[in-house]
Amino acid sequence: MPRRYAFGRAEEATHPDSVKATLSEFLSTFIFVFAGEGSVLALDKMYSDRALSASSLVVIALAHAFSLFAAVASSMNVSGGHINPAVTFGALVGGRVSVLRAIYYWIAQLLGAVVASLLLRLSTDGMRPVGFSVAAGVGGLNALLMEVVMTFALVYTVYATAIDPKRGSLGTIAPLAIAFIVGANVLVGGPFEGAAMNPARAFGPALVGWRWKNHWIYWLGPFIGAALAGIIYEFGVIQSEAAPHLPGGHHQPLAPEDY
Amino acid sequence: MPRRYAFGRAEEATHPDSVKATLSEFLSTFIFVFAGEGSVLALDKMYSDRALSASSLVVIALAHAFSLFAAVASSMNVSGGHINPAVTFGALVGGRVSVLRAIYYWIAQLLGAVVASLLLRLSTDGMRPVGFSVAAGVGGLNALLMEVVMTFALVYTVYATAIDPKRGSLGTIAPLAIAFIVGANVLVGGPFEGAAMNPARAFGPALVGWRWKNHWIYWLGPFIGAALAGIIYEFGVIQSEAAPHLPGGHHQPLAPEDY
Amino acid sequence: MPRRYAFGRAEEATHPDSVKATLSEFLSTFIFVFAGEGSVLALDKMYSDRALSASSLVVIALAHAFSLFAAVASSMNVSGGHINPAVTFGALVGGRVSVLRAIYYWIAQLLGAVVASLLLRLSTDGMRPVGFSVAAGVGGLNALLMEVVMTFALVYTVYATAIDPKRGSLGTIAPLAIAFIVGANVLVGGPFEGAAMNPARAFGPALVGWRWKNHWIYWLGPFIGAALAGIIYEFGVIQSEAAPHLPGGHHQPLAPEDY
Amino acid sequence: MPRRYAFGRAEEATHPDSVKATLSEFLSTFIFVFAGEGSVLALDKMYSDRALSASSLVVIALAHAFSLFAAVASSMNVSGGHINPAVTFGALVGGRVSVLRAIYYWIAQLLGAVVASLLLRLSTDGMRPVGFSVAAGVGGLNALLMEVVMTFALVYTVYATAIDPKRGSLGTIAPLAIAFIVGANVLVGGPFEGAAMNPARAFGPALVGWRWKNHWIYWLGPFIGAALAGIIYEFGVIQSEAAPHLPGGHHQPLAPEDY
Repeated sequence: MPRRYAFGRAEEATHPDSVKATLSEFLSTFIFVFAGEGSVLALDKMYSDRALSASSLVVIALAHAFSLFAAVASSMNVSGGHINPAVTFGALVGGRVSVLRAIYYWIAQLLGAVVASLLLRLSTDGMRPVGFSVAAGVGGLNALLMEVVMTFALVYTVYATAIDPKRGSLGTIAPLAIAFIVGANVLVGGPFEGAAMNPARAFGPALVGWRWKNHWIYWLGPFIGAALAGIIYEFGVIQSEAAPHLPGGHHQPLAPEDY
Repeated sequence: MPRRYAFGRAEEATHPDSVKATLSEFLSTFIFVFAGEGSVLALDKMYSDRALSASSLVVIALAHAFSLFAAVASSMNVSGGHINPAVTFGALVGGRVSVLRAIYYWIAQLLGAVVASLLLRLSTDGMRPVGFSVAAGVGGLNALLMEVVMTFALVYTVYATAIDPKRGSLGTIAPLAIAFIVGANVLVGGPFEGAAMNPARAFGPALVGWRWKNHWIYWLGPFIGAALAGIIYEFGVIQSEAAPHLPGGHHQPLAPEDY
Repeated sequence: MPRRYAFGRAEEATHPDSVKATLSEFLSTFIFVFAGEGSVLALDKMYSDRALSASSLVVIALAHAFSLFAAVASSMNVSGGHINPAVTFGALVGGRVSVLRAIYYWIAQLLGAVVASLLLRLSTDGMRPVGFSVAAGVGGLNALLMEVVMTFALVYTVYATAIDPKRGSLGTIAPLAIAFIVGANVLVGGPFEGAAMNPARAFGPALVGWRWKNHWIYWLGPFIGAALAGIIYEFGVIQSEAAPHLPGGHHQPLAPEDY
Repeated sequence: MPRRYAFGRAEEATHPDSVKATLSEFLSTFIFVFAGEGSVLALDKMYSDRALSASSLVVIALAHAFSLFAAVASSMNVSGGHINPAVTFGALVGGRVSVLRAIYYWIAQLLGAVVASLLLRLSTDGMRPVGFSVAAGVGGLNALLMEVVMTFALVYTVYATAIDPKRGSLGTIAPLAIAFIVGANVLVGGPFEGAAMNPARAFGPALVGWRWKNHWIYWLGPFIGAALAGIIYEFGVIQSEAAPHLPGGHHQPLAPEDY
């Protein structure tokens, strides 16, 4: 696994681009979690029971897809538009981001999610954030597998449309592809285990609403799925292509500005 | 706060580009408010009670997102695609538009919203526009905070995708990011306080339907949120980046044609 | 009104580009009407009554928006992506298309809508197309006004994003803006008078389902709205801009390939 | 029918680009079928009966459209973004892909759909995939005709936006046009016969759920529709345009990299 980024980069910590990228991750994750978790609270406000219906599932999926699109588009050119610790982990596994920058991003993403959950609680006069839980009749391992597969789909899409150096003009629609695969997967995983695909999205409401049951699933599942996507895309798709012409040539890590 | 635009620009008032941009803001706000408020009246036509359901929330969110996309895309290259007094205020705070042009835009936006509400009343044979109100059990300050946060998300998206001089090819999808963050936030704020994020959107129906209760929230909230976004993006993101290479260089105000 | 296109163009009738453009209009209108009217029949298949609900309104709006997007994108570079006699009329009023080509397009669009309605009837084992009607409690003039306003919004969007010579990179998202304003307006006009904004969309099902009540509204309304949009955009927005630099310069009609 | 690709290309089988493209088709089809079929199982989880409602139709249509967009965008530059044996067949009929590559793609697509269905069954603790069936009151030939027409619309859109050498900047939005026409057609065909338009999408759940009734419809219909679209676009639209300037010039087959 490439680790070129990991050492001898002390100056990265105070480089204005790092500060800016970290701020961008914080604000975009804030915007995404406010809308995503907020849509769940909006349904709580409308209905006394919390039973999912097809319509409420559409509400949640659209709120996630639409806000994630804006959040990724807003940070794409500044931070790479991760908005998700699992995406950052997938980029780290593929050698596309340094360990130091990954740690910065993770802190910013978690902080953004917590602040969003706090402001939701304040602006709804104390409603307790809901976050994610495994539905009755669904086993923990089933839920874990579902998070793995859905996050794999998400991070694979990130690699193919936003990281691959040969993505070309598709980069313009990368934020939409990323947002829509999340929206589609919410429509699948929603009734089973909520479909987080994003530990920050799960962590903020869990902390502010203090609900930790099965919380590990929303960290382990996304990290496994993201790592699989990073490895398969990096070594299966990018490498196999580069092989004949540029042995290893495409493999150099990209600065966030490049993707 | 930069005020370079504010003085010595008497000719701006009669410059054909100002006339064209103002006309564009008027027509695009008209198109947006007709569809946005019209979708609320369509639900009134279908259902005797006005209780929000998940499905009706989707109707309202999509009507706002879809029409705002067309409205912003239609005016992007002509006026900058504000369609919203709060967006214009955010651009003013960041020094991206002159005071004179801001006043023109505000008048055009309010007028567009009023004409849309009037034509809705005419074409529905007298249905009274609904506009925005704070739901039972939601305090005025809670509603205000929600408008602040949601408009912050909107204007931050506008800055990042449509104003930032380094936005690059993301400018192509800026109208979609702007439209979708509004759609997402309607799904959040709808059941609490309606989710205006736009004083013109609130003013037109309020005037034509003559409903003024809590109307100040839909002006103060969006203006605070927009100012915060303008300041944070302008001085946090754009400035911190420009600092090492071009001290203050990116800070010159842009003509609307540039963004 | 510019008529440069109208005379001395006998060869246009057999020019391969005309044939190709006309075929493209036929097939794209076919695709759009099959999905648009088909979604209404799908609801008929699911529910015994024909009362609109918020969910069924979303079905119809998305079917129209999504299929129109594909239809406009598919024909944009070939025929200009009209798919709608009112759009062609708006382009004719603004001098952007010749009378001869307009007649070709109109025939192709009407034919496409009729064939789509016939194939719907065949593939649903004889279900009678529904088309458009004015809801109880809505006057004919109210419905007419609503069609005028909504088609104005549509054709204004077409002009701003797909015809304006200064639209720049916005042209890439023009099909989406056109599709989404139609989707938004369906959410508004649906419960009142159906929201056609397109005489071909109304004509095909009317002929195959033999329902002609108030049919004139779906011709007159769209044509008035389209003419207003064409005149206002052509002489208000494009002209006022061109005035200082190129007196009349931008006014030369464009070949369909150009927009 | 052009067959230039079919012979003397033994090395294609082991060329790294073929491997990569085949892997890309496998993974993208996997992502698409997991979300598409998964949304049907999500509704099964929420509701005890399987009666379609307007809201559940929206869930299914959005899950298909959103995930197909990500899947096509992810593979567009690598494999051409087929994700569908019928699309590959349409490209084969138009001479846009070799027989050998088509066979590779078909295997990859079917395998991706099967693996997706298996992982769905595992992660839902054994829920039996549903796949496609013809609704009560709909004849087999009616269903077949509907599949033909809807797949025609899909493959015509693929040709116009992703294959046509003159598509220009529309190529950027091709994945969206392809995804949205599928979403629109699901809203039409859903209550009648499910609206597959894709034999792999039908095959995976049929195998894993072991439901084969009327399965032939979801192969024959899409293949007929795709062939019609390929022939009409290739010889009607592309050829008629090329005729005057380049007799046959546009007809040379494109490598997947080109579209």
